[in-house]
Amino acid sequence: MKSYRKDLWFNTAKRREYINITSQIKEALTESGIQEGFILVNAKHITASVFINDDEAGLHHDFEVWLEKLAPEKPYNQYKHNGYEDNGDAHLKRQIMGREAVIAVTEGKLDLGPWEQIFYGEFDGKRKKSILVKIIGE
Amino acid sequence: MKSYRKDLWFNTAKRREYINITSQIKEALTESGIQEGFILVNAKHITASVFINDDEAGLHHDFEVWLEKLAPEKPYNQYKHNGYEDNGDAHLKRQIMGREAVIAVTEGKLDLGPWEQIFYGEFDGKRKKSILVKIIGE
Amino acid sequence: MKSYRKDLWFNTAKRREYINITSQIKEALTESGIQEGFILVNAKHITASVFINDDEAGLHHDFEVWLEKLAPEKPYNQYKHNGYEDNGDAHLKRQIMGREAVIAVTEGKLDLGPWEQIFYGEFDGKRKKSILVKIIGE
Repeated sequence: MKSYRKDLWFNTAKRREYINITSQIKEALTESGIQEGFILVNAKHITASVFINDDEAGLHHDFEVWLEKLAPEKPYNQYKHNGYEDNGDAHLKRQIMGREAVIAVTEGKLDLGPWEQIFYGEFDGKRKKSILVKIIGE
Repeated sequence: MKSYRKDLWFNTAKRREYINITSQIKEALTESGIQEGFILVNAKHITASVFINDDEAGLHHDFEVWLEKLAPEKPYNQYKHNGYEDNGDAHLKRQIMGREAVIAVTEGKLDLGPWEQIFYGEFDGKRKKSILVKIIGE
Repeated sequence: MKSYRKDLWFNTAKRREYINITSQIKEALTESGIQEGFILVNAKHITASVFINDDEAGLHHDFEVWLEKLAPEKPYNQYKHNGYEDNGDAHLKRQIMGREAVIAVTEGKLDLGPWEQIFYGEFDGKRKKSILVKIIGE
């Protein structure tokens, strides 16, 4: 069994952003030389997500509106977590969107459906944060 | 390390349906000959889910009512994604229900709890869509 | 390829609790002797979760309030699932919080971010329930 790991770093301009990382995950897979196996891609921070959905600006706008309805950022004092911090909402949004994606590797490629794109979802940005890519297989 | 992959196809009669796929996943595992490892089962379409919960009709009714409350299908114009499409709600419902399940394989069997059943959750059906089963192990 | 499995048991005093299981997962990893691979940690019951977030009491209070808003326990008769049971809400809460976490193993350690802690989330407790830890790798 082979394994490969890589950190990818982000520093978003806005508090909330969705970044398509599919090409960076493909690159990590190529570097690994693994032909058959699994890739785990997970946020290393607990106010961010890795998820798979459509690369469509209208949908990303819908995510923003929807997550703000389900777990609003403000008023900050609605969350007990917000003593020294103001990111209580980000911890909740990340539960909806998920921490990680596990993706099959087949014949050296990401085995994704026709519209599947991998995203980094940032809910408390404007600072350096990372995700982990770990690949196991042969 | 061995690996095995299989596509499973669905074409639901209704826009939203929950289909118990546990026996099909067992069959794929038997075909693989793998005794110890992991199975990844994921929707290949971004308006569908694979998730694990109870095979109980009342609960499935509750899912329908609950998801319609959290991310209603109509009015279609509430979602920016709905320019050429009408499935904005399905992209959101799938985030709640999840894209994938990873299941342990032990002694050649699905290592599931007493009530765990694997479901395909369709949120924008009436057309051919597939899921991926990928198994790695020995 | 090596593999290792272990059940961990819980019996919470309250209906809903969050228990930090990170040290128990580390212990299982040490027992496995695996240096590079993946750990799957999943609830075996469908009214419980395994998820990764912050070990902070304020946030856990926020989870309780938030999940009760999204999928309230009472009135029990709002859920069709609640014929012989009263845990319809727990099946829904578990969909938000997730069934499983997959964690990378690197150089014999859990490859977690600085604040990532692994939790057992119980939504219908006061009885014996278990989770599965399955590790594959080398």
